[in-house]
Amino acid sequence: MTAPTHLRAAVMTGVDATTVERRTIPMPGPLEVLVEVRSVGVCGSDVHWYRDGRIGSTWVTDPLVLGHEASGVIIAVGSDVPQARVGARVAIEPGVPCGRCEQCRRGRYNLCPDVRFFATPPVDGAFATHVIIASDFAHDVPENLDDDEAALIEPLAVALWAVRKSAVGLGDRVLISGAGPVGLLALQVARAAGATVVVSDVSSERLAVARELGAGLTVNVSSEDLPGDFTALVECSGSPAAVAAGVTALAPAGRAVLVGMAPDGTVTLPLDVIQSRELVLTGTFRYANQYVDAIALAASGRVDLRRLVTSTHALTDVHLALQLPGRDRSTLKPMIHPKQDETTPA
Amino acid sequence: MTAPTHLRAAVMTGVDATTVERRTIPMPGPLEVLVEVRSVGVCGSDVHWYRDGRIGSTWVTDPLVLGHEASGVIIAVGSDVPQARVGARVAIEPGVPCGRCEQCRRGRYNLCPDVRFFATPPVDGAFATHVIIASDFAHDVPENLDDDEAALIEPLAVALWAVRKSAVGLGDRVLISGAGPVGLLALQVARAAGATVVVSDVSSERLAVARELGAGLTVNVSSEDLPGDFTALVECSGSPAAVAAGVTALAPAGRAVLVGMAPDGTVTLPLDVIQSRELVLTGTFRYANQYVDAIALAASGRVDLRRLVTSTHALTDVHLALQLPGRDRSTLKPMIHPKQDETTPA
Amino acid sequence: MTAPTHLRAAVMTGVDATTVERRTIPMPGPLEVLVEVRSVGVCGSDVHWYRDGRIGSTWVTDPLVLGHEASGVIIAVGSDVPQARVGARVAIEPGVPCGRCEQCRRGRYNLCPDVRFFATPPVDGAFATHVIIASDFAHDVPENLDDDEAALIEPLAVALWAVRKSAVGLGDRVLISGAGPVGLLALQVARAAGATVVVSDVSSERLAVARELGAGLTVNVSSEDLPGDFTALVECSGSPAAVAAGVTALAPAGRAVLVGMAPDGTVTLPLDVIQSRELVLTGTFRYANQYVDAIALAASGRVDLRRLVTSTHALTDVHLALQLPGRDRSTLKPMIHPKQDETTPA
Amino acid sequence: MTAPTHLRAAVMTGVDATTVERRTIPMPGPLEVLVEVRSVGVCGSDVHWYRDGRIGSTWVTDPLVLGHEASGVIIAVGSDVPQARVGARVAIEPGVPCGRCEQCRRGRYNLCPDVRFFATPPVDGAFATHVIIASDFAHDVPENLDDDEAALIEPLAVALWAVRKSAVGLGDRVLISGAGPVGLLALQVARAAGATVVVSDVSSERLAVARELGAGLTVNVSSEDLPGDFTALVECSGSPAAVAAGVTALAPAGRAVLVGMAPDGTVTLPLDVIQSRELVLTGTFRYANQYVDAIALAASGRVDLRRLVTSTHALTDVHLALQLPGRDRSTLKPMIHPKQDETTPA
Repeated sequence: MTAPTHLRAAVMTGVDATTVERRTIPMPGPLEVLVEVRSVGVCGSDVHWYRDGRIGSTWVTDPLVLGHEASGVIIAVGSDVPQARVGARVAIEPGVPCGRCEQCRRGRYNLCPDVRFFATPPVDGAFATHVIIASDFAHDVPENLDDDEAALIEPLAVALWAVRKSAVGLGDRVLISGAGPVGLLALQVARAAGATVVVSDVSSERLAVARELGAGLTVNVSSEDLPGDFTALVECSGSPAAVAAGVTALAPAGRAVLVGMAPDGTVTLPLDVIQSRELVLTGTFRYANQYVDAIALAASGRVDLRRLVTSTHALTDVHLALQLPGRDRSTLKPMIHPKQDETTPA
Repeated sequence: MTAPTHLRAAVMTGVDATTVERRTIPMPGPLEVLVEVRSVGVCGSDVHWYRDGRIGSTWVTDPLVLGHEASGVIIAVGSDVPQARVGARVAIEPGVPCGRCEQCRRGRYNLCPDVRFFATPPVDGAFATHVIIASDFAHDVPENLDDDEAALIEPLAVALWAVRKSAVGLGDRVLISGAGPVGLLALQVARAAGATVVVSDVSSERLAVARELGAGLTVNVSSEDLPGDFTALVECSGSPAAVAAGVTALAPAGRAVLVGMAPDGTVTLPLDVIQSRELVLTGTFRYANQYVDAIALAASGRVDLRRLVTSTHALTDVHLALQLPGRDRSTLKPMIHPKQDETTPA
Repeated sequence: MTAPTHLRAAVMTGVDATTVERRTIPMPGPLEVLVEVRSVGVCGSDVHWYRDGRIGSTWVTDPLVLGHEASGVIIAVGSDVPQARVGARVAIEPGVPCGRCEQCRRGRYNLCPDVRFFATPPVDGAFATHVIIASDFAHDVPENLDDDEAALIEPLAVALWAVRKSAVGLGDRVLISGAGPVGLLALQVARAAGATVVVSDVSSERLAVARELGAGLTVNVSSEDLPGDFTALVECSGSPAAVAAGVTALAPAGRAVLVGMAPDGTVTLPLDVIQSRELVLTGTFRYANQYVDAIALAASGRVDLRRLVTSTHALTDVHLALQLPGRDRSTLKPMIHPKQDETTPA
Repeated sequence: MTAPTHLRAAVMTGVDATTVERRTIPMPGPLEVLVEVRSVGVCGSDVHWYRDGRIGSTWVTDPLVLGHEASGVIIAVGSDVPQARVGARVAIEPGVPCGRCEQCRRGRYNLCPDVRFFATPPVDGAFATHVIIASDFAHDVPENLDDDEAALIEPLAVALWAVRKSAVGLGDRVLISGAGPVGLLALQVARAAGATVVVSDVSSERLAVARELGAGLTVNVSSEDLPGDFTALVECSGSPAAVAAGVTALAPAGRAVLVGMAPDGTVTLPLDVIQSRELVLTGTFRYANQYVDAIALAASGRVDLRRLVTSTHALTDVHLALQLPGRDRSTLKPMIHPKQDETTPA
């Protein structure tokens, strides 16, 4: 195979504006690989960047390639990477930390202040035919995971990290609030870890998927009362009301892991409840050291990633794909297939 | 010594109203002891009950004896308690749990729903010449602790529990917000555990005491900026602004322990900070299993309890003592000496 | 139903000697219940007491009723127990702690020095038609668990406690050494918690059962090499060689939980391996707070308790049942049915 | 200052044989610094390499520079290191991990299989006038620590890591077995963390130093009985008898951290005690992320490093210095001053 010289990328050029550009493929550094991208999921953060031009106080000020949930095939390697990696099907862990700072040395590389994370200004993402990534962050995937599943290892890593922070296992009764992609993955992970799971949301449609994926009980909080006495909460909606309700639904010594991001970055919490029950709360930021286990978990069949795929799109339709999650709640994961010529329903 | 037959108690008969009553001394149960009370500290919760008639949604509806920070001497024992305990000087742990529920069995006896806690309706407290307590909850104190110090083992247990929840030790940089009695004790405990401590408050007077008791730095947040990069926060003020500021001042992976109770029971927190730094927050409710260590810590001289005593009062002046903390910030701990005839300055 | 006045019990009167005695049924204390025993498992410890007259340095010096894995039906209650408990089918947690000592207060009630544990001199056990137990330690079991399963909640609690101490979950690769009853239960618990499990033993017969119950791989260490790189070891054989081999098979930062008791109470461990990999080891002693979860786990169908039952026996055949485990490795759990007239194969 | 072109190093050329060689100073790599060595401590491992030609199964097969407890001054920096570091006084963390493997990514960089550690074949150590080290592993030291103290940050990091693994703090009663340099440092660290400490050894001379450095009690186990009920053990002797005795002296739920290396790499442990008290044991291997805190701890004056220095030697007397620890128990730390012309008593 002759090495390609150019890639195509869907570039966000402004709020709600993309164009597909042709760019020279850069050379991988000594410890990097060049990956031909096969599938990329659309994440809520992509949607936020695209629609609002910012997340929190970080703005998109220059043209940016979005997309960070990606899989592909290694087609070239840097000088210090074994040549044998060429041809490997990989799930791309999209944030490469510095490896040297205090956070990295302590194993919290997701908190590295110098991490370079796909689709976070000014680092380009994966809505492209090719990307460069550190070889260590291109994780081999087994044959029984297809390209979309390999791409969705990324949100599975988010869910796995969150569920692990909640320390749930046998005997736990977990409330997962928010039945979007991360919530539906957290549901499956918590069940695989031995917990019983209740899922809450305001969408009957999404709760139906939650039941299909193993929720013991679902609660539509727009019309039903939330039960209580949960040992853990994994909050995936980012709704301040859901955070407060979920925390209040915890049993003494319960743990709350807050994954969903709030619209204005703040939540009002019942301190009296946190104190009188000695609850423990934490928030998560991406993940560290989760890809190997996430891949094994998906490959074992205990987590259904395919069920999340609701449509697939060509690079030229990235614009459309980025609008879907905001339009209807039946959309879970639009997937971009950069080499595909046209968009097809899942 | 002839056993006394009657006790005197300062009874709260309504908001801002007390009367000293004479009551028959009850017999200790088989596992209980009768303690002649020597000293009782006035706690913020006593002040709240007295001034507001309630804490949160719990109201004082019947006459109630306040006071739960108490020391004394055992003068009689129940049938299953060794007679040798008579004469023991003790610090009274004022909450006796059921010992049988799930919380008790798991060692979280402070969360026992059936705990009987002094001065919490409908359980009478210790502003009295005599009280009954489970023998196991009357802890021997060594000679080198005086009666006031023995009484103040209670707030020291609160502080010790909170500092332990914050997991601080060597190398930690701790922010203690709120330089009231619990904050000043948490300061000393954190230092004894090897941490360096910064104390914040709005009162220069209290911050001066904090410096005297070992604070490496004090910050008057009414006029000065709070530094950052703390590894732990022990929040003792209950001020929602202090909670938010303290959480924001934490380093990645920092821990926040919320001890102070908020006026309306809620706080608004920076979820984005909690997530992007993966902070861990918890609240504390009293303490469990802290008396033995608190007594040893005080006896070792590493914590100065006497410095907290700002006045002593006779039982007839409980009314006055309960008003002092609200009146001036120089008041730390008014102490009630039930057998004393008149009030004296500390 | 007229309350029975007498019970029958199989009493160990010496090494390898039992007799069935008729005794007056004692009255339950205020917080106790009287249980008509339906099924009791034979444990290795029963076999040891019976065959050797001792375990470690504790000797059977007086007539003793063995058996501590018991289920039954409550037929009478003490004065402070709700009458509604009469008729309840229960799994008996056979060790009642004091509830007051330091270990109890810290939630480690299995380490209570004053625990009264069935079939441990001088406390009689459950090879009897009736037993008295604290009401809190007679745990309700659902209809879908039969009497044998309810009895085997006890070894399941042992296994659950051990697996929890090993902190295994998703992504863990666990070695379980020893495929006796506890090992076979630990296997199932570890799998239910999301781990992959390898089981080792010297008996092909037992390893076949392990495969049947979900072992991903079994290793007959009498002829095969043990693989390595396990993240956790749950050692259930008590063989010093297995302990050393299992510890050596752990990956860096691996955890070892030692459940099996060694013949002479000691093991020789590779300190250099423990140090260079910073392994963490602990031993377990019975369990605390495991019955509720063990019952739910069994009721959920994720653990097969029935597969362990290899024979059932009448009270008159306790002698025979106690000899079976030592005779052939196909014996897993002989069960005593105290009301049954004669012994039947499982 | 003209950059020097050659260094002098004391090279171990065989068992009990050294020679001082002149070598060309290598250029620091982009992220490295060149350090002029000021002081180097002699460690037990240096003594082992020198006397036995091996530690465990690792042999010294080629000429090797020993010494890994070093301090000095940066005199040149690599291309990616700020020039401002030149002139910095530094404590050298002597093991540089790969930064990329699973152990490194999880924050356990001391377990990195590719770590390059000074004075461990085939990596040369610091008994030399100059060494190269990664800039991140040359830690700034404040003025109030002298060169010997800066060098001894290394064993202090060993002790700090061990004490932290033992989780000791306020209320803990710690047994430190072995009053050599690491034991004497662990003693001081445990005290700084709020614990009370008992030290055991067979040398009255060393126990006298332990008392001087704050041991509440010392026990000469050659003639005195060890008390019990410790909450933690930090085993620094490597004596199998001390390990077993120390473990046996632990209270229920006690923790044992095994730092000392056993002569043949194995220890025989009382499994029955580990089980019946549910003790937790671990071993330590060097340290990770301890230098910053160790430097701060030493600078705070809470740990006396100078007391450990028992002699100082020129590079030409490395041979002598390596023999001292084996000769008399009054030797704690011989220090090598590579630029010094002749040996002087401490």
